[in-house]
Amino acid sequence: MRKVIYGGATSLDNFLARPDGAVDWLMWNDEVAAITMEMWKTVDTMLMGRKTYEVARRMGGGPEGGVFAEIKSYVFSRTLPDEAGVNIVREDVAAFVARLKPQPGKDIVVMGGGELARPLFEAGLIDRVGFNIHPVLLGSGVPAFHPMTRQIDLELEESRPFKNGSLYVSYRVVH
Amino acid sequence: MRKVIYGGATSLDNFLARPDGAVDWLMWNDEVAAITMEMWKTVDTMLMGRKTYEVARRMGGGPEGGVFAEIKSYVFSRTLPDEAGVNIVREDVAAFVARLKPQPGKDIVVMGGGELARPLFEAGLIDRVGFNIHPVLLGSGVPAFHPMTRQIDLELEESRPFKNGSLYVSYRVVH
Repeated sequence: MRKVIYGGATSLDNFLARPDGAVDWLMWNDEVAAITMEMWKTVDTMLMGRKTYEVARRMGGGPEGGVFAEIKSYVFSRTLPDEAGVNIVREDVAAFVARLKPQPGKDIVVMGGGELARPLFEAGLIDRVGFNIHPVLLGSGVPAFHPMTRQIDLELEESRPFKNGSLYVSYRVVH
Repeated sequence: MRKVIYGGATSLDNFLARPDGAVDWLMWNDEVAAITMEMWKTVDTMLMGRKTYEVARRMGGGPEGGVFAEIKSYVFSRTLPDEAGVNIVREDVAAFVARLKPQPGKDIVVMGGGELARPLFEAGLIDRVGFNIHPVLLGSGVPAFHPMTRQIDLELEESRPFKNGSLYVSYRVVH
C-alpha cells in the first residue's frame, strides 16, 4: 500500500506560512536540499488544496512546468474552474485518497496546508509526518494543524538538527 | 540578569493539555525526570496564570506544600480573591516581570500556558524556550502559543530524543 506523507517547513509555533502566504523566513541549505530530494524520489503523487495550488501558481508552478510536470498532482476544490492539464478533484478528499492508496505507484505527499491534512488524519489515511521545524515563532499565519475530532498517535523515527539551526523531525503514524 | 524560561510538555500540534486541562497523554521516564530536576535547580521563581494555578490546585499543589513551598510563585489574575500564602499579582504581567528580572535571584519559569507567555514574548522578556514534544497530535486543547503581533527569532541549542519517543528541544530567544 502506498504511504501518504504530510510535511513541510514549519515555525516552532506550527505555521507553514505568514498570514499572506509568505515564506520569506524559510532557511535553505545543502542538508535541506538533500532531504527534500530524497523525499521526492519516493513520491509520484501530490495532493493540494486550492489555496496551496494558488500559491504554487504564483510562485511559477503550473501545468506548464515545474514539479507539476514530473509528479501527478491533484487539486481539491469545489470552486476552481476546470483547467487544461490540472486534475481538479471535486469529491470528498478522504474518499478519493482511500481509493488512491491501494493503486500501484510510489508514495503520495500532502502539500500544506492543514485544511487538507485534517480530514485525511481524521480518516486514518496519513502514514508519515515530516517537518523541518524552523527556529522562529511567527506569531500568526497558515496553521499546519487544524482542530481535529480525535487524537493521532505518532512514533518518532528521526530527529536531525541541521547546521542552519532548523530541526528535521519524522514520525510514523500509529494506526 | 535572571533569565525567563517558557516551557513544558507539548503535543506535536502544540497543545499543553486537552481542552479540559487533562494531561493523561504525558509520558514520564528517568530522562524526563533528570532534565526536569536540572531545570528546577536553576529556578527560584514561578509565574502562572489563573487557569494554570487552578489546575495546579486541583492536582494537589497549593500554599500548603508541593512546589509552592520551595519556589516563590506569582499568580497573575485580576479576578482571584486574595488568599493567604499566595502572591496574586493584579498588575500587567510584562511590567511586573520587567521589574523582577534585574532583581537578584535564580531564573524565572513561566508555567503553561500560552496566555501568560504571549505578552512576555511580545515584550521581549522571555529568554529561553524548552519543550518536551510528545509524539501525538491531540487535535484540540490548551495552546502553548497564542497569536502574537510580532515574530520571535530563536536559536536551537539542543534537541534530544528520549527513549520513550518524546523529543526535548531547547531554544535561546534572539533579542
